[in-house]
Amino acid sequence: MKRKSFDSMACPIARSLERVGEWWSILILRDAFHGLTRFDEFQKSLEIAPNMLTRRLNALVEAGLLERRRYSAHPPRDEYRLTERGRDFRPVLWALLTWGNKHFAPEGKSVVVIDSATGKEAEPILVDRLSGKEMVEPLFVSAAGPVADAGTRARHALAAERRAGRDSGETRHE
Amino acid sequence: MKRKSFDSMACPIARSLERVGEWWSILILRDAFHGLTRFDEFQKSLEIAPNMLTRRLNALVEAGLLERRRYSAHPPRDEYRLTERGRDFRPVLWALLTWGNKHFAPEGKSVVVIDSATGKEAEPILVDRLSGKEMVEPLFVSAAGPVADAGTRARHALAAERRAGRDSGETRHE
Repeated sequence: MKRKSFDSMACPIARSLERVGEWWSILILRDAFHGLTRFDEFQKSLEIAPNMLTRRLNALVEAGLLERRRYSAHPPRDEYRLTERGRDFRPVLWALLTWGNKHFAPEGKSVVVIDSATGKEAEPILVDRLSGKEMVEPLFVSAAGPVADAGTRARHALAAERRAGRDSGETRHE
Repeated sequence: MKRKSFDSMACPIARSLERVGEWWSILILRDAFHGLTRFDEFQKSLEIAPNMLTRRLNALVEAGLLERRRYSAHPPRDEYRLTERGRDFRPVLWALLTWGNKHFAPEGKSVVVIDSATGKEAEPILVDRLSGKEMVEPLFVSAAGPVADAGTRARHALAAERRAGRDSGETRHE
């Protein structure tokens, strides 16, 4: 796939996307969370071409999301397990799942997240650990961080300006 | 891009990925949350080829994440604004941002999420709205939902089995 590298961008979202690589990678991670570890298991679950699966697994190992471990010498066979970095991707997957269930499951939910103790379906929301407040706009907003470059600062300054314009009901005539 | 459609899969994560299309789409959404609305603005921000940007914007409109509104008749010019479905994608972006900041920002954070009222940096975590508990494994797990097909049920049954095996410290010799 020909495209510029997102890694040169300062944005942490772009850098994350660079690491997860493409959609297949996210579905491989999903299956890894389900306990799949072996090439054949991933292939069967995803119905993905072997060369594509090899490429995606290698990329995930290289990005530090999966680790490869040889479990058989003859014949040589590897398994793939989530690293801590890979496990930290869980909230992204559950946020995607929640969004998909809300907007793209007209026939009902195929997959839910449950509280293991009670078996009850959970309702995942993003919360600020410090204040306990639900993170919704405009109560929370993205902002330039301590090492933001000029472009990132300009983008967030513009965003703040547009929010202010929107909040005051001003109509822009540019 | 040649690949099978994820939309035929029952998985809500796969369906979400089908709608967001590819990485560019996520960065377009990110910019839309920053208040960008016009073709030229997206192009300048993303340094993306015009034909690619047109394609991604059309896909996001078709998927119901952006709406197109003509703001000038002569010359004909459209702007793109987030729909409610698009706005609901916010937690996914912030979850990605949090993961990127933790793992791929060795030089420090370029972008953070702040509490608008206090200006303090937020620490986004996924919480179950019902119980208020932080959603981490294995306290919370994915499970087959009410309309799960046979494949989805089998996948989650296997996942439960492997979790049980892991928890008891059992070594599998398959």
